[in-house]
This record gives sequence, C-alpha cells and structure tokens, in this order.
Amino acid sequence: MMTTHADAQSYQRWLAVAIAEAQAGAAEGGIPIGAALVGGDGEILGSGRNRRVQDDDPSAHGETCAFRSAGRQPSYAATTMVTTLSPCWFCSGLVRQFGIGRLVVGEARNFHGAHDWLAEHGVEVIVLDDADCVRMMADFIAAKPRLWHEDIGDDEAGKG
Amino acid sequence: MMTTHADAQSYQRWLAVAIAEAQAGAAEGGIPIGAALVGGDGEILGSGRNRRVQDDDPSAHGETCAFRSAGRQPSYAATTMVTTLSPCWFCSGLVRQFGIGRLVVGEARNFHGAHDWLAEHGVEVIVLDDADCVRMMADFIAAKPRLWHEDIGDDEAGKG
Repeated sequence: MMTTHADAQSYQRWLAVAIAEAQAGAAEGGIPIGAALVGGDGEILGSGRNRRVQDDDPSAHGETCAFRSAGRQPSYAATTMVTTLSPCWFCSGLVRQFGIGRLVVGEARNFHGAHDWLAEHGVEVIVLDDADCVRMMADFIAAKPRLWHEDIGDDEAGKG
Repeated sequence: MMTTHADAQSYQRWLAVAIAEAQAGAAEGGIPIGAALVGGDGEILGSGRNRRVQDDDPSAHGETCAFRSAGRQPSYAATTMVTTLSPCWFCSGLVRQFGIGRLVVGEARNFHGAHDWLAEHGVEVIVLDDADCVRMMADFIAAKPRLWHEDIGDDEAGKG
C-alpha cells in the first residue's frame, strides 16, 4: 500500500504520542518503550508505556498497556497500533488475536520483533526507522543491559 | 516425551487450580477461563482468570493474569503454564516470548488456539482433553455467545 504524505504526517503525530510515553517511562527509571492505539478516524484511543519496573509487572509492555488503556472496543479492524520499538511475540500475538489492522513501528534496529510475521498474516506494517526511537533505545540498552534482557525474556545478549 | 503417572497426577492437580479460577470467574459473571503458572518444583507461582467483564479489561486473559500474578521471575524455562482452554495468539505469544518451557491445556475442543504453533517452536505441550473443562466452556459459549466472540476478538462464530 502506498503511503501518502498525509499518512506519513499522521504516523509521525501518533509516534510522537508513543515517544512521549517512552520518555515518561525513562524519567520514572523504567524501560523506554511507548505505544498508542489509534482509532479509524485517527483519534488516540489509548496510550501506554512499559511498566515492568514501575509496577513490577512483566506483562506491562508498551503495547499491552496502550491496548488496556483503550478499554473494550467493538472491533479492532480499523485501529492502528503505534509503538516505538518492533513488537515482541507477546505484543505481536495481541495484534494478531484482536485483528488490529495496522502496525506502525518506530524502529526495528535495536530489536527485530515479530512485525514480519504480522505482515505475513495480513496486518499492514509500516516501519518508520525513526532516528529518535533508535537513539533512545540504544542509549537505554547500553545503560541497563540486564533490565533490557530481563524484559525481553532473554538472558543472552543478541539472541533476540 | 513420555508422560509418567506422577506427571499426570501433577497436571491434574495444577489443572484443578486453573478450573477453580475459571469457576470463580463464572460466579462473578465473567468468562470461565482460568490458568496457573507453575514453578520447576511444582509450586504454584501465580494463578488468575479471565477478567474482561470484571475489570473491563480485554487484555486480562486467564494466562496473562496468571503470569502477572507470579510477578517477575528470573527465568521461565522451568515453568509450566496450565490453562483450562487452548491459548489464543496473545497468550501463546506470551508463552513463546518469555520462554515458558511447558504448556498444559485443559481442552482444545471449544477453541483450538495456537498450542500447535508453540509445540513447533519447542514448547512441551500436553492437551489433557478434560471433560469438565469441555463442559464448562461449552455451557458458557451456549449461554453468552456474544461475550465469547468479543473476548476472542472475532465477530463471526466458528472463525476461531
């Protein structure tokens, strides 16, 4: 699908919401991953950030928190999940299970999650390769590698 | 892997915890799906039930609630997720992402989730085909089909 200029502007506006969530998480001493669930008319239905540290909850990923914050929706087909980082299997499973129609990924350099798998299964996937997202995550991983590998459920660096 | 008599007894004991959660959920007017996360020594690390109705939270599946209830674990390789019903993509993504080593499924007749996918990716999967679990879920789906299809993110009956 061709991305128009208007689409690109929308993606950046939504990504800014996700980045603000991630930055708030970093300021709290948490993992800087943020997300937003966007409705069919471009409205923000919910947003959230990784809260593993803040809530001591390993299931509180950015995407799951954004999804929860949006409450119960009658259908997710017209919604877009926007996230600062490529989604892990857990969050990708969320997108697939609930039939979220589109996924906008800030970056997939620091972690290549399962967005290709979602694209194979009919989700429209846009990877923005946003420089701010790349830098934010790289800085965090360099500063707190142990916390990052705990969050991603992997004791070995680079196993992904 | 061969299932010993002692294994089978453990599975039934753990499944009883998940069934009790599901029954408590039904008594609250919720969706009767329960789960438990079991440690390497057979101890219950956490348990939970679907809380879509109770908490108005569509991400509160039995497995995710059991996982949250167990708190942060250093590793999940030796743990077992026990659930009354075959796990959806969201909950299967949870199992895969965090490297939960084993999955015990009460039944997969009323909903065939992604347990085969997990088995393909190295998770030890045991499907008990438990008659109580089958009946509990079938009764619920017959009584509240709309709630069931909302939970599973599917407007069409049978699409799974």
